[in-house]
Amino acid sequence: MKNCYNVGVDVGGTNTHVALVDPQGRISQRSRFDSHMPLDQLVASIAEAVAKMQSDGNEIGGIGVGVPCANTRTGCVEGATELPWPNPTPLAKMISDATGLPCRIANDANAAAAGEHAYGAARGLDNFILLTLGTGVGAGVYCDGHLLNGRNGFAAELGHVVVDPEGPQCGCGRRGCLQMYCSAQGVKLIASQLLAKSNAESSLRQLPLDQLTPLAIAQAAAKGDALAIETYRRVGERLGSACANFAAFTDPEAFVFFGGVAKAFPLFKETMLAAYRRDALFLYRDNVSFLPSSLPDADPALLGAAAIAPAHHQ
Amino acid sequence: MKNCYNVGVDVGGTNTHVALVDPQGRISQRSRFDSHMPLDQLVASIAEAVAKMQSDGNEIGGIGVGVPCANTRTGCVEGATELPWPNPTPLAKMISDATGLPCRIANDANAAAAGEHAYGAARGLDNFILLTLGTGVGAGVYCDGHLLNGRNGFAAELGHVVVDPEGPQCGCGRRGCLQMYCSAQGVKLIASQLLAKSNAESSLRQLPLDQLTPLAIAQAAAKGDALAIETYRRVGERLGSACANFAAFTDPEAFVFFGGVAKAFPLFKETMLAAYRRDALFLYRDNVSFLPSSLPDADPALLGAAAIAPAHHQ
Repeated sequence: MKNCYNVGVDVGGTNTHVALVDPQGRISQRSRFDSHMPLDQLVASIAEAVAKMQSDGNEIGGIGVGVPCANTRTGCVEGATELPWPNPTPLAKMISDATGLPCRIANDANAAAAGEHAYGAARGLDNFILLTLGTGVGAGVYCDGHLLNGRNGFAAELGHVVVDPEGPQCGCGRRGCLQMYCSAQGVKLIASQLLAKSNAESSLRQLPLDQLTPLAIAQAAAKGDALAIETYRRVGERLGSACANFAAFTDPEAFVFFGGVAKAFPLFKETMLAAYRRDALFLYRDNVSFLPSSLPDADPALLGAAAIAPAHHQ
Repeated sequence: MKNCYNVGVDVGGTNTHVALVDPQGRISQRSRFDSHMPLDQLVASIAEAVAKMQSDGNEIGGIGVGVPCANTRTGCVEGATELPWPNPTPLAKMISDATGLPCRIANDANAAAAGEHAYGAARGLDNFILLTLGTGVGAGVYCDGHLLNGRNGFAAELGHVVVDPEGPQCGCGRRGCLQMYCSAQGVKLIASQLLAKSNAESSLRQLPLDQLTPLAIAQAAAKGDALAIETYRRVGERLGSACANFAAFTDPEAFVFFGGVAKAFPLFKETMLAAYRRDALFLYRDNVSFLPSSLPDADPALLGAAAIAPAHHQ
């Protein structure tokens, strides 16, 4: 009997990755497509990649897809602002029809949590909260060994928990969502505000505004730039305080951080831990781990998507 | 074969209730004890009540206990401020030893959620959040059909989510916990502040401060007292805004409200719904129900405790 593989698909705001994943979580084939090609073409491209994997002799059980705004129950993508698709888009059915394989979709951050749980920093943990600090802030929550889905699969939109009702305007139309402080946009906003409020010397002043990225700020911080260091300290302050409230929901043993901003983990870890310990209820204060993702860039979502793929019943 | 009953125990800050519960959720025998008697005597009293039920010919499968600060994993009560017990107190083992029956303990609000899920307002709902608005504010959360426990069974301490870091001091040592606005103490605090801040006429001014209870304020509101009405409007405002953030965690289909303050549900419902709709992310704004408990006073916790009792394996 052949090994049974699953296919993981990660639909990001820019690129769509497709990977063949074995039961041990090893990725053996990868393809990448532009997420902004017409939807029919994108689905056809995914189907071609899958057909190629099959023609290479791999038996594929099912396909799992991580995608923003996924309704796990209906298999539809609903209102994803970064993808030029109709609302709703019955993505699971489209991919299943094109490939002849069962397909399940999940919120991209939930897929990443499944990947960390199966193969990453959260392996063996029944209770943890994954925060993806990227273009926006997403989350996936495991409680009692289960990935929380909720009524429509929209559980764990923790980037849209309001942490300051008078904070900056978020793309969702409200103010002070967590992602306005800890996403790429949030880090940039904090640095911009610090630059505007003082005349303190900073190498960041020499950058054009569109190069004021989390990476550039982290690089400046690594060279001792005080304003860049303070930027990440403030990111940590907001994250720690938010995590203190999150702990009261699921009594987790760990928080795991993934995404572009999380690459600067050492720069915000200390203030995050201090804010967490200051703000958490005594029940949750101790013995909680704060961990960076241990998996390469796109892999948590790809591996997690493969892990949630439905089994092929013939 | 005889019907197999479970015993539900609800340990409150004042009274401890013990009930015999049949598989249909009917309570057929009840006892009540003072929670503040010495711990050994309380356990002996529970065991005597159970022995009486057995001698009446009822076969009992197991005992479930709802109690504040219950560590579900260890069976110990840890740091319950309203009970004069050692910390930790191995309550599950003590009751099991005294009765010869298997015993499981759970946080009292989690037990109440199990009761509402099995027999009350949340029957048939896989995703809901129960808030108990009593002496404090407790919570129990069902997601994907599971009652969330978390690492130590301390999931869903939503009364201790900080909603205003500069708010009133809570018994837990922090400021602005939700329970400082929506518990019996919180309602009283809001009314006191309104009374102190204005000279507006109010029948509440004639009450001695220790009679300024949620019930007295609700009665004044029912008679048209504007300040009493405003008190509950503010309770609703805080609850609705908090629920908007809670929804982002588990994508619930309903919120259920139980406890003394929840008896004034019609007095805070409208402002709660308005605040919720104003503050919730679009994904959660519609089709969420806000329901008062449909079970009599102590019954959700008793029924839920019986529902979580372990099966008796002989």
